[in-house]
Amino acid sequence: MNFLMPTEIVMGRECIRENASIFARYGKKAMLVTGERSARQNGSQADVIAALESQGMEYIVFDRIMANPTVDIVYEGAIQARENAVQFIIGIGGGSPMDAAKVIALLATQDISRENLFGGVYENRILPMIMVPTTAGSGSEVTKYAILTNDVTQTKISVATPLIFPNVAMLDAKYTETLTIKTTVNTAIDALSHSIEGMLSKRANAISNLLAKESIRIIAECFKELESGQVSNVSRERLLYASSLGGMVISQTGTVAVHAMGYSLTYFKNIDHGHANGLLMGEFLNYIKEFEPDLIAEILSFMNMNVIDEFKEKMETLLEKTEKITGEEIEQYSKTAMKTGHIANCIVTLDFEGVKRIYEKSV
Amino acid sequence: MNFLMPTEIVMGRECIRENASIFARYGKKAMLVTGERSARQNGSQADVIAALESQGMEYIVFDRIMANPTVDIVYEGAIQARENAVQFIIGIGGGSPMDAAKVIALLATQDISRENLFGGVYENRILPMIMVPTTAGSGSEVTKYAILTNDVTQTKISVATPLIFPNVAMLDAKYTETLTIKTTVNTAIDALSHSIEGMLSKRANAISNLLAKESIRIIAECFKELESGQVSNVSRERLLYASSLGGMVISQTGTVAVHAMGYSLTYFKNIDHGHANGLLMGEFLNYIKEFEPDLIAEILSFMNMNVIDEFKEKMETLLEKTEKITGEEIEQYSKTAMKTGHIANCIVTLDFEGVKRIYEKSV
Repeated sequence: MNFLMPTEIVMGRECIRENASIFARYGKKAMLVTGERSARQNGSQADVIAALESQGMEYIVFDRIMANPTVDIVYEGAIQARENAVQFIIGIGGGSPMDAAKVIALLATQDISRENLFGGVYENRILPMIMVPTTAGSGSEVTKYAILTNDVTQTKISVATPLIFPNVAMLDAKYTETLTIKTTVNTAIDALSHSIEGMLSKRANAISNLLAKESIRIIAECFKELESGQVSNVSRERLLYASSLGGMVISQTGTVAVHAMGYSLTYFKNIDHGHANGLLMGEFLNYIKEFEPDLIAEILSFMNMNVIDEFKEKMETLLEKTEKITGEEIEQYSKTAMKTGHIANCIVTLDFEGVKRIYEKSV
Repeated sequence: MNFLMPTEIVMGRECIRENASIFARYGKKAMLVTGERSARQNGSQADVIAALESQGMEYIVFDRIMANPTVDIVYEGAIQARENAVQFIIGIGGGSPMDAAKVIALLATQDISRENLFGGVYENRILPMIMVPTTAGSGSEVTKYAILTNDVTQTKISVATPLIFPNVAMLDAKYTETLTIKTTVNTAIDALSHSIEGMLSKRANAISNLLAKESIRIIAECFKELESGQVSNVSRERLLYASSLGGMVISQTGTVAVHAMGYSLTYFKNIDHGHANGLLMGEFLNYIKEFEPDLIAEILSFMNMNVIDEFKEKMETLLEKTEKITGEEIEQYSKTAMKTGHIANCIVTLDFEGVKRIYEKSV
């Protein structure tokens, strides 16, 4: 068993205001990395800036991170970080800005070519990072991963290194209150897929399973509210907690086939990441069930479900309809998925036909 | 909520041999800090040395740590570390050598006077530390605490700082197989008290409670084997895991009254630390039950128990008889306990009379 999760977690309403001194630990000048809108709308950016100002600190804002951030944008961010001599990075937003912030923190301290960016070999230095998630899904605030879109391989690809574990994650669920119900659902299902896939990883261990079980249980308890469209603030806090647990899980286990397969749906069909995972998860569980029926039954039991069909129905109720994918596309996506390490990371080895069949039955 | 547990955990049979490269991360010359006998007898010292040699590394051995280590010995160890220019520290043993190793790592890099050693204010540097627990009790391999015996205050006292979180904990339960049943029981009960006290701390949070619950559950499942005197290797592995969970718990929550009260029994009566905690825990739970009946019922339920008397009987069966403590002694110990921060850290504020009553009913 291996377990590593060095990120400090600070959670609670107004935790940024109440822990402003944490920012001062990491220097006198910060770069905020965020998208162009949501961090302004949900108040998180203002809260971070107020905290920095209360500590007499300087900052610059790099707010050009788009959904599914590109390799280009992190290199641009790193140039800004260097030119402005910032001492640490604050990522604010969903998985996209947080992931971009991590890679910017890495590129700000060392020259890495585009060819080597995803190679996993880096010098042992990085700017300190504080993450402020404003969705409850990616868990990026506590992971060693940063997912970027790679136009060379036409899919998403990870920078994966313990170096990019953030120093601190500051979790205030109030920033998730302004999310649409669609984003709330999609991100919750992303978190759910982290915990479920984590339990089906070869690297699952006692601690990751303990965290995964708690996370699955909490998210399933929120299904009813997610379905109704009315998600209470208490549930939002629980979803944010559960999504961080999911992040801790995958930092140990990695994700498996669902993530590998979902990336093509996002890249080519612009289906949101969590949504894509939700579409594929039921048939993936059906596939694994042939080999590991007890484990699948256990996972279903955490959600108070008896059969996979219940799970599939729940996903169908929660997720929006998507366009049909052609046989040709499925062939292509299956090839892409098979090339990833995610497939080999699953407790059951999926073959090309198996992957194809999951796509065919799912989308 | 706050959560921090940056120590990397590597667990499994032969994990030291199989992860020899981990040692090389931290330099070329190590100091082993251990007691004079057990690390030799149980094979842990030989395994560590073999791992270091396989990496072509140098080492010195400082094997003079006694049970309940003194302030003197850690200053002596730090002199050795400096004179030999070691780059990192490997603590091998139970709580005593590991705790001493942590303070040696601190004192090796900075001058701290004896007056300021327990003050909590240190410069931000320390030698890297790898811990190899050979008992399943203290959880020190994953905590930010080091407990020393302080003859000035006539009790045990903590160095407490996130600086002393070890870098890596390497857990191989085979080193616990040579422990006597008495030590196996006492250390298991120490671990149990960490998790139970953690749940009764003002600083308990969702994650610490999740870990505590798992830890209590596992230890209670081992009661029968502990009672029989025959503890299987599988159970030893589970106990070691549970004791690390307990360490993670108290790194978030601290301990409460049981630890504060037990220290005097160890200092003045030479009652083993875990044993002392076990003697006091039942009456402590009885005291808290008046204010928090549901929480106590929940904790008992993790052990499949309905009433505190069951718990007390179990402790009586497991622990050896001790000599009676006089009223005068109780008066003195109660005063000492009341001066500690542990008392104020409990969800229920104990007063002097309450502490005295717990002692009177327990010993």
